Amino acid sequence: MKVMIDICIVPLGVGVSVSEYVAACQKVFDEAGLSHQMHAYGTNVEGGWDEVMLAVKQCHEIVHEMGAPRITTSMRLGTRTDREQTMQDKVDSVQAKLS
Amino acid sequence: MKVMIDICIVPLGVGVSVSEYVAACQKVFDEAGLSHQMHAYGTNVEGGWDEVMLAVKQCHEIVHEMGAPRITTSMRLGTRTDREQTMQDKVDSVQAKLS
Amino acid sequence: MKVMIDICIVPLGVGVSVSEYVAACQKVFDEAGLSHQMHAYGTNVEGGWDEVMLAVKQCHEIVHEMGAPRITTSMRLGTRTDREQTMQDKVDSVQAKLS
Amino acid sequence: MKVMIDICIVPLGVGVSVSEYVAACQKVFDEAGLSHQMHAYGTNVEGGWDEVMLAVKQCHEIVHEMGAPRITTSMRLGTRTDREQTMQDKVDSVQAKLS
Repeated sequence: MKVMIDICIVPLGVGVSVSEYVAACQKVFDEAGLSHQMHAYGTNVEGGWDEVMLAVKQCHEIVHEMGAPRITTSMRLGTRTDREQTMQDKVDSVQAKLS
Repeated sequence: MKVMIDICIVPLGVGVSVSEYVAACQKVFDEAGLSHQMHAYGTNVEGGWDEVMLAVKQCHEIVHEMGAPRITTSMRLGTRTDREQTMQDKVDSVQAKLS
Repeated sequence: MKVMIDICIVPLGVGVSVSEYVAACQKVFDEAGLSHQMHAYGTNVEGGWDEVMLAVKQCHEIVHEMGAPRITTSMRLGTRTDREQTMQDKVDSVQAKLS
Repeated sequence: MKVMIDICIVPLGVGVSVSEYVAACQKVFDEAGLSHQMHAYGTNVEGGWDEVMLAVKQCHEIVHEMGAPRITTSMRLGTRTDREQTMQDKVDSVQAKLS
């Protein structure tokens, strides 16, 4: 089962700047070999369910190791059995309706 | 690593009534032996990270098997290393501030 | 247009304990006369769209006034035109499928 | 008060393809003159709180008018009082940590 997620990891107890934690998570997705795309309020990641979820777990582990005592993440998870659809397909599909 | 999640699973392509799908997921959490509490717009579940995430995967699998071709889930995930805190502890902590 | 929301307000830059901020938001919903129900990872609120959204804005304002320099909120918003459905109706609907 | 949101609007009861509804919402944000950026699992929008929230309401209204009897939206809302930060600033801040 493939999954596409949108994830926003929020460390608590480390002040207001969270960019270094977000950067660490980008590296996790990179090293996992997962297709991912950061935006201003989260990151899209796609791949096999188990691989993506393992990376999410590693993000929590690494952010705790970096010093955050508490993390609250918000995430969307999309799966479908009717057809394959990449992140780019989704954007293209809307763009086609706009033009 | 323990995790507390709040999950709202939304099947697409099966009409507007989603209660039977939500009920099926409650059974998944029951059978997994995970502490869980449904509310009007989602379900709180707590337990070990791997056990909780396996149950989330099983929810997606069972909702697809029930006929939903597409699922979009929204989820919050909380972890902390500073102390143990159950779902009831969180509610009690706020209630104490209100009284 | 009526709306039901599930809201989790997360203040950043104020340490790991957020219960006093959550409690302040409960008071906002109370004083707005909105039906609301807290759970372990958020609060359900229902009412007219404008009244509910005004309360959400007031929550952000009050949490900033209490000293949080940054807030990240995650929220679900449900509207429907086919029929009226309260928070309790939604829970009852799933419970009926479980029994 | 300025706000940055990430919004994913999900119409129910209209099948599995949601791109035309997403496209309609892009037009709402355009016509409102709000800075916005679509990604594969939502859209970032920034502006004054009231302007952004009015556009969100209009999205729900237009998606209902297009025929969706039920909508469930997931949204993140970020506000901060310490400094101004645009969507691009947020992405740049993480990129700087990665390079």
